[in-house]
Amino acid sequence: MSGFAELWAEIAPIGRADGGGYLRFALTEPELALRAWFRGQAARRDMTVTEDGNGNLFAWRGEPWAPGTVLTGSHFDSVPHGGGYDGPLGIVSAFLAVDRVPADRPIGIAAFVEEEGARFGVPCLGSRLLTGVMDPSRAAALTDRDGVSFAEALGAVPAGRDARIGQIAAVVELHIEQGVALSAPVGVASAIWPHGRWRMDFTGVGDHAGTTRMTDRRDPMLTFAFTVLTADKEARLSGAHATVGRVQAEPNATNAIPSLVRGWLDARAADTATLDQLVDTVVKKATERAGRDGTELVVTPESVTAEVSFDTALASRLSVLLDGAPILPTGAGHDAGVLSAQVPTAMLFVRNPTGVSHSPAEHASDADCEAGVDALARVLADLTRTTPANGPS
Amino acid sequence: MSGFAELWAEIAPIGRADGGGYLRFALTEPELALRAWFRGQAARRDMTVTEDGNGNLFAWRGEPWAPGTVLTGSHFDSVPHGGGYDGPLGIVSAFLAVDRVPADRPIGIAAFVEEEGARFGVPCLGSRLLTGVMDPSRAAALTDRDGVSFAEALGAVPAGRDARIGQIAAVVELHIEQGVALSAPVGVASAIWPHGRWRMDFTGVGDHAGTTRMTDRRDPMLTFAFTVLTADKEARLSGAHATVGRVQAEPNATNAIPSLVRGWLDARAADTATLDQLVDTVVKKATERAGRDGTELVVTPESVTAEVSFDTALASRLSVLLDGAPILPTGAGHDAGVLSAQVPTAMLFVRNPTGVSHSPAEHASDADCEAGVDALARVLADLTRTTPANGPS
Repeated sequence: MSGFAELWAEIAPIGRADGGGYLRFALTEPELALRAWFRGQAARRDMTVTEDGNGNLFAWRGEPWAPGTVLTGSHFDSVPHGGGYDGPLGIVSAFLAVDRVPADRPIGIAAFVEEEGARFGVPCLGSRLLTGVMDPSRAAALTDRDGVSFAEALGAVPAGRDARIGQIAAVVELHIEQGVALSAPVGVASAIWPHGRWRMDFTGVGDHAGTTRMTDRRDPMLTFAFTVLTADKEARLSGAHATVGRVQAEPNATNAIPSLVRGWLDARAADTATLDQLVDTVVKKATERAGRDGTELVVTPESVTAEVSFDTALASRLSVLLDGAPILPTGAGHDAGVLSAQVPTAMLFVRNPTGVSHSPAEHASDADCEAGVDALARVLADLTRTTPANGPS
Repeated sequence: MSGFAELWAEIAPIGRADGGGYLRFALTEPELALRAWFRGQAARRDMTVTEDGNGNLFAWRGEPWAPGTVLTGSHFDSVPHGGGYDGPLGIVSAFLAVDRVPADRPIGIAAFVEEEGARFGVPCLGSRLLTGVMDPSRAAALTDRDGVSFAEALGAVPAGRDARIGQIAAVVELHIEQGVALSAPVGVASAIWPHGRWRMDFTGVGDHAGTTRMTDRRDPMLTFAFTVLTADKEARLSGAHATVGRVQAEPNATNAIPSLVRGWLDARAADTATLDQLVDTVVKKATERAGRDGTELVVTPESVTAEVSFDTALASRLSVLLDGAPILPTGAGHDAGVLSAQVPTAMLFVRNPTGVSHSPAEHASDADCEAGVDALARVLADLTRTTPANGPS
């Protein structure tokens, strides 16, 4: 039986980036190397590997999709220069946990594709396709920054919903916690805040930076900048979260007024009403400013995810099983949140001392990761013993 | 003798970009194709082609660098998705003008490298090297967005100052006007506003957009946005021009607070005191805001060009020669501005009906371009007849 640090060291070098953190985009070379590693781990344990035609990879102890199976796992892909724990921790922990559960228990380990949405823009793309909440033809047409479509990267139009997901007894995803709210080594998720991403296209008139009079300008960078500050202020006022972390300007030249600035608004709140109000207010104020700047704003929701409340009885049961592990909500989206609409689902969080995530500085201690493996093993053993056929709640 | 439209049509397709305008970056494939075209035009006229080891290309009627030669020409390179006239108009017009000047007059035509600074960040790089105001080793180390150095692109460390520039009797650059101030077909330049570009590195702490509390953030996008709005406001208040047209965020992910946002400030004013005051005020206010955001700001001047006053007597003489052509200043930098410190220099502007430049919408009429060729031919004939040895003023 491997320890955590030993197995972790096998994947730590894969996709490490110059400049810090990881570049593990879905279906690119480093993520494909992690998938190969996944197949090797499955083979070492005599687990059957299957794919679902959506880019998701599975390793099964017992028959694939056997009724009563408990599905665990997470994702390999990262944000640009992201941390190494966000995603892979749940897969490495799953293999180690399986080693600690009696061999006759039906368990599946999933590696979901494109959880971050960092390559094709829609987070949890794999789990959305698997559960049928994302249209396969729409997913096929999503493109990355180089114009490569998801269908091209996958080698096929995605297969879409797999009805066998309904045969799964429960889903348990282990993940590094991404804030500072968890002070114990392991916690249990209660809910995921409703959240979404909105693409904002600010268009103006490109012109010469040196010769165009200030009063003649229609500069979309001004409207963009105003919107960044407005989103921040409105989020603070409403107790929500708003971020503009991604921006593109065209032509993006020092001596040219941009013709287009594109920014992405990431917004999250504890409830849907607050989130809707936040986004409405930001868009309204940005549109007013566009009128004053002589620019135009078009807002396109790229993905909007309703509030997820994980199975309350299941969360309580896991908390008791794990000696009173704390139950806490999160602002981060996860495949488990998508799956929870169709399968009884729980999440385990491993402590993050600084709360930093989506950054090279993301870190969890080996001791806490070991505690996570132990907790996941106990949960898998409990759920497969007690709920072979019809779900835990 | 070719007409303007005929010769113009030869280069119009080169470097035309999907999405509009031109991508003609220095020493990339389209600009190299334009250089090959330049050599062909020179050969057709029995002109000798030389290079200066800095990336500048010359075609000579008479001995290269012969004392008393009048140098004309401009640049081939464009800003991203720039117009087709900015630069190439001055070279095409030069060849056509040479056809209309008696064959014994000593004339050089220059194609200066990297006038826009769009690839390596320093505008007028070729003329700065030729005149020795740019250090060759510093130029060699400049890199483009892919990390390719200027020395690598050039195939050598640049040669630096060529003392023979002092033998040139006069420089006359013809260029499309880049504002709406010129209502006649052709005008004469009086001055170039002092101007510069300042790189602003805003650093913060990268983190998860969903889980990081607003009060825990050190988000450099906020400081950047504030600075964009401040630069615009201060420029309006002081009658100057300020633009932030280029931005880069890292990691530039929708669901990550950036660790770094880099923006470039382009600022110009009618006099140096106003420009200095503008930049000082913007940096001071941005630094104060960085303190409130928990971010840091480092400002690096990438190029700062003092006010250029073209040779007043020469400008007056050309205005009279051209039947009272208007004399006007510009906010745009030009190689002629760099050369004017060492050689009597003039510029001719061709009317731009909309004033739009650095944009696919940049345009001049064929009739005005013909008028420009005619004016340049008259100027070259006049200057080479009257001032063979010691300059026109």
